Amino acid sequence: MAPVTPGEEMHALVERLYPLCRSITGDGLRATLEIIGEHLPLEVHEVPTGTPVLDWTIPQEWNIRDAYVADASGRRVVDFAASSLHVLGYSVPVAATMPLSELRPHLHTLPEHPSWVPYRTSYYTPTWGFCLAQETLDALPEGEYEVRVDSTLEDGHLTYAEHVVPGRVEEEVIVSCHVCHPSLANDNLAGVAVAVQLARALAAERPYYTYRFVFAPGTIGAITWLARNAERIDRVRHGLVLACAGDPGQLTYKRSRRGDAGIDRALRHVLLASGRPHRITEFTPYGYDERQYCSPGFDLGVGSLSRTPYAGYPEYHTSADNPGFVSPEAMEDTLAVCREAFAVLDRDRIYLNLSPYGEPQLGRRGLYDSLGGRSDAKEAQMAMLWVLSLSDGEHSLLDVAERAGLPFGTVADAAEALCDAGLLKA
Amino acid sequence: MAPVTPGEEMHALVERLYPLCRSITGDGLRATLEIIGEHLPLEVHEVPTGTPVLDWTIPQEWNIRDAYVADASGRRVVDFAASSLHVLGYSVPVAATMPLSELRPHLHTLPEHPSWVPYRTSYYTPTWGFCLAQETLDALPEGEYEVRVDSTLEDGHLTYAEHVVPGRVEEEVIVSCHVCHPSLANDNLAGVAVAVQLARALAAERPYYTYRFVFAPGTIGAITWLARNAERIDRVRHGLVLACAGDPGQLTYKRSRRGDAGIDRALRHVLLASGRPHRITEFTPYGYDERQYCSPGFDLGVGSLSRTPYAGYPEYHTSADNPGFVSPEAMEDTLAVCREAFAVLDRDRIYLNLSPYGEPQLGRRGLYDSLGGRSDAKEAQMAMLWVLSLSDGEHSLLDVAERAGLPFGTVADAAEALCDAGLLKA
Amino acid sequence: MAPVTPGEEMHALVERLYPLCRSITGDGLRATLEIIGEHLPLEVHEVPTGTPVLDWTIPQEWNIRDAYVADASGRRVVDFAASSLHVLGYSVPVAATMPLSELRPHLHTLPEHPSWVPYRTSYYTPTWGFCLAQETLDALPEGEYEVRVDSTLEDGHLTYAEHVVPGRVEEEVIVSCHVCHPSLANDNLAGVAVAVQLARALAAERPYYTYRFVFAPGTIGAITWLARNAERIDRVRHGLVLACAGDPGQLTYKRSRRGDAGIDRALRHVLLASGRPHRITEFTPYGYDERQYCSPGFDLGVGSLSRTPYAGYPEYHTSADNPGFVSPEAMEDTLAVCREAFAVLDRDRIYLNLSPYGEPQLGRRGLYDSLGGRSDAKEAQMAMLWVLSLSDGEHSLLDVAERAGLPFGTVADAAEALCDAGLLKA
Repeated sequence: MAPVTPGEEMHALVERLYPLCRSITGDGLRATLEIIGEHLPLEVHEVPTGTPVLDWTIPQEWNIRDAYVADASGRRVVDFAASSLHVLGYSVPVAATMPLSELRPHLHTLPEHPSWVPYRTSYYTPTWGFCLAQETLDALPEGEYEVRVDSTLEDGHLTYAEHVVPGRVEEEVIVSCHVCHPSLANDNLAGVAVAVQLARALAAERPYYTYRFVFAPGTIGAITWLARNAERIDRVRHGLVLACAGDPGQLTYKRSRRGDAGIDRALRHVLLASGRPHRITEFTPYGYDERQYCSPGFDLGVGSLSRTPYAGYPEYHTSADNPGFVSPEAMEDTLAVCREAFAVLDRDRIYLNLSPYGEPQLGRRGLYDSLGGRSDAKEAQMAMLWVLSLSDGEHSLLDVAERAGLPFGTVADAAEALCDAGLLKA
Repeated sequence: MAPVTPGEEMHALVERLYPLCRSITGDGLRATLEIIGEHLPLEVHEVPTGTPVLDWTIPQEWNIRDAYVADASGRRVVDFAASSLHVLGYSVPVAATMPLSELRPHLHTLPEHPSWVPYRTSYYTPTWGFCLAQETLDALPEGEYEVRVDSTLEDGHLTYAEHVVPGRVEEEVIVSCHVCHPSLANDNLAGVAVAVQLARALAAERPYYTYRFVFAPGTIGAITWLARNAERIDRVRHGLVLACAGDPGQLTYKRSRRGDAGIDRALRHVLLASGRPHRITEFTPYGYDERQYCSPGFDLGVGSLSRTPYAGYPEYHTSADNPGFVSPEAMEDTLAVCREAFAVLDRDRIYLNLSPYGEPQLGRRGLYDSLGGRSDAKEAQMAMLWVLSLSDGEHSLLDVAERAGLPFGTVADAAEALCDAGLLKA
Repeated sequence: MAPVTPGEEMHALVERLYPLCRSITGDGLRATLEIIGEHLPLEVHEVPTGTPVLDWTIPQEWNIRDAYVADASGRRVVDFAASSLHVLGYSVPVAATMPLSELRPHLHTLPEHPSWVPYRTSYYTPTWGFCLAQETLDALPEGEYEVRVDSTLEDGHLTYAEHVVPGRVEEEVIVSCHVCHPSLANDNLAGVAVAVQLARALAAERPYYTYRFVFAPGTIGAITWLARNAERIDRVRHGLVLACAGDPGQLTYKRSRRGDAGIDRALRHVLLASGRPHRITEFTPYGYDERQYCSPGFDLGVGSLSRTPYAGYPEYHTSADNPGFVSPEAMEDTLAVCREAFAVLDRDRIYLNLSPYGEPQLGRRGLYDSLGGRSDAKEAQMAMLWVLSLSDGEHSLLDVAERAGLPFGTVADAAEALCDAGLLKA
């Protein structure tokens, strides 16, 4: 059955991308960007191995065709073809036969979840390895095993992509998703799927800001993007890292390093006003690519939106983080909060009351119930009074909404009405 | 029995003013100011219709001689003579006979309090109407009714008045009361009565600040005062709007827009130190004339003191807000807090410790118990040490009192003793 | 048995100093400094009577050989030889016989603790008196008594002493103990004993700051030290007054007048991180010599560390504050917290991240577990990331530790490792 709701569409994208063997470089990453590109026009960048990017260097490109451990009878007891998780990311090639005892240090399991396969990588220390279920390992008899990783680690490229929703101004909001994890649904295919829908929704609205979506491998990808955009980084007004966007947990917003950047205040306002259960956590220099965007040299106003955050659920970085772990409803909910928060950022401006001495007479401008004592449209009128009271050049509409305890939208509508009446200007 | 206590005197004034039909202009307002003038010399201002005042214009003057609804038998079923509340404020003249069905949209009731008459006005939209008890309305049979409002709405004046208690400096504290409400006791005859007593008490004390009492109709009156005093507005250091000053509820202080103006801090200190149950609420741009004084162009340090605040009691803006709803004791309590708060403002000053290196030797100046270890007059000594410690040019006596957790008066007395000893100067 | 632990050594010093009759001047004070000097080389200062010190003047020197009240039979009913507390400090000489009724105003007792002898002084009002147990007084029959105070009050000197632990920089931390109280153990012989051990421990560590220990009589001694060091007072970066350092109560840190000086933050961090029950109290201009160091002209970052603070225990300023009231364990605990706090101050510095754009690649510098997903040495790695994130020239290591919620030592070690790797500089 074809997907009909945005949630179903997002879930279908997660399922389609799930099997690919993504890493921080390579053809799995390229294939992923190609599929995203079917939904959203992408500008794809290829950065050659060896290119210096900030303190780092683009590594060699890793590709893998096959990998397995086979027993004496030739039966593949661990097989990359079954799941991209089975091979340690960035494993160097190997083709050997060895006893289990020698193989064992190369085998990674999760003893506390014996049926799950862990996700492991070794990007910067050359080695090879396999990830498998503890119960699979326990069932292996001693003896000789054939070990094979048919991978290449060669000069090539690091690939990342951008999609831009043009706005009315050149100042930008960035939305960043890491796309380097192999078969893990919540981390981060759900984030990718939410970003795709978000970009399409924004495009339909002709927003104020220009929105730039960055799909890049974690850490090295964000560092590469920053290195190549350092000259124009001061265009970035706000940003959001999307990760773990589809699990059943409540939403978690992690503040930017600044702590009170526009994005921090917008997310807080929206989460509080919506009445959703949620958590707001302080910045830490660990997590996803907000680490890079918020590094002290850039210190961008970039927060991170997740449901259950980084390492906060047992399925994290295991085979249990599969498409069944993420739901259309959860992704729709994440999407809705993103849209609400960006709607706040997009309308938040500092206005100036042009009639600041005493209250202007709203009644003769048709902005006030003229029959004293009635209470119709009370909230809209309070919003107008608050906007007039605080529009002294030092308070934005979000300041007004927070001090007034009113929804941002009501306040922004009041500001529009007052502008139309000539009482306010941006 | 003639009133003997200040509370009884205030209550007698409320009772005397109660029957008058006040509005934002007209002879009922003039008569009210005349009676206040018997207690307090007033400078009365008459501002002609059509005069521009800030964003507003002085409206036509409204006067009313009679108004009623009479049934087919000629019996007045609603009669202005019984209560000034029965006519919609600023009703245009009407003389007609009409069926109840046609009259009904002009009749205002309070279904939730069927025996009470509501208070309604229509200052800026020309119309007419009557206010009556729901149970009166329910008893009216269908049929023809004679409707008569014998009012005039003509070019004339807006009237307001001032009383000044001269101080030692020209800087001013303003105390503002709205005087536009007809037969409502708590809103705002109690405020007027408290202001009258307050002015007389201040005059007896030769205060530091000059205290200016403003008796003016709500909104348009305060706007008129501000328009005519804009040039000298920077003399205003502090201000207080008195409203709902006599009901049985606990005291409520509403902060100025600044939130930490002198008046805000003085009221907070006095209310906390007194141990009275009370509420302190944040500024909102709704309520009484603090709206105008705190408009962003002026942004004066003006708060508002009430007992139960604006719209916070069922009797609000109904015939149940009658002299029985306000008590001598409640008005005396409001008066006492005003006096205490103004006593703080009047003595609050930044002093400078003239011996700031180490503690000065209080003992040889007779300011310290010289027998170590005794605890007489501990609080006075602590106040001296605190004043010396914090009088570095950045802390006022109220700062000292708050940080020390001492009553303001004790701190101010300590400062005086230290000045006398040559250890401190203003 | 010779003392073997530092606690026992401190307690032995308390016991040895206990019997001496100290005051703000005189030979008992000199003898005390001589004994301290056996443990710690001291520079002893003698300041002549009459020398002006800030707002004060060095008083006459008081010495006492004997004092007693004897009954008609010649029996000494109150005898200075039994305890230095029995004579009012700074008693003028007297030799007289008088009836009990005449003697009574000169006798000080503690009715609420009938078996305890109070401690009283009269430094600046010439008088004489005796302190005794209420039950002793109650047992005295009416009759004639011989009264004798064999004291001298003559021009002489005020004595104080300093010990300096040289550091790598000239900026100083001062540790100040009052040494004017006679036979009182917790107030302040315990403080003296802790200071002695602290000085020796610091000397063994070659600290960053220069640590100056001041042993001086209370109030007048600190004022004298300040008067004589006013020129070089800006060398003082931090300071701590040690008092009541050995009683069984929990530790209490009283903040400096500034409230957020380095010493305030260091003590708070150490007390919180240690998990000890403790209290942190705000500055008041009463207590010990922090009053002088924090006077507004100097406003030094000097706090005060006690166990049960000033006047907070019934034994305070009585004969019950004897060596049995202070314990080796309590003094060791006070010492430990001092050492931890000074270790924080000594290492707290603002560093600069030399690679602030994006995260530097810790892995290739051997500072990071290169196998992604493992959690070894998590805290040390988090500390590095936090130091890098916040070392923007505006945050010290203590800021980092507090924001990160990590122990200061872990953060300081991380900073050292990052300096060694060339990623950070002071």
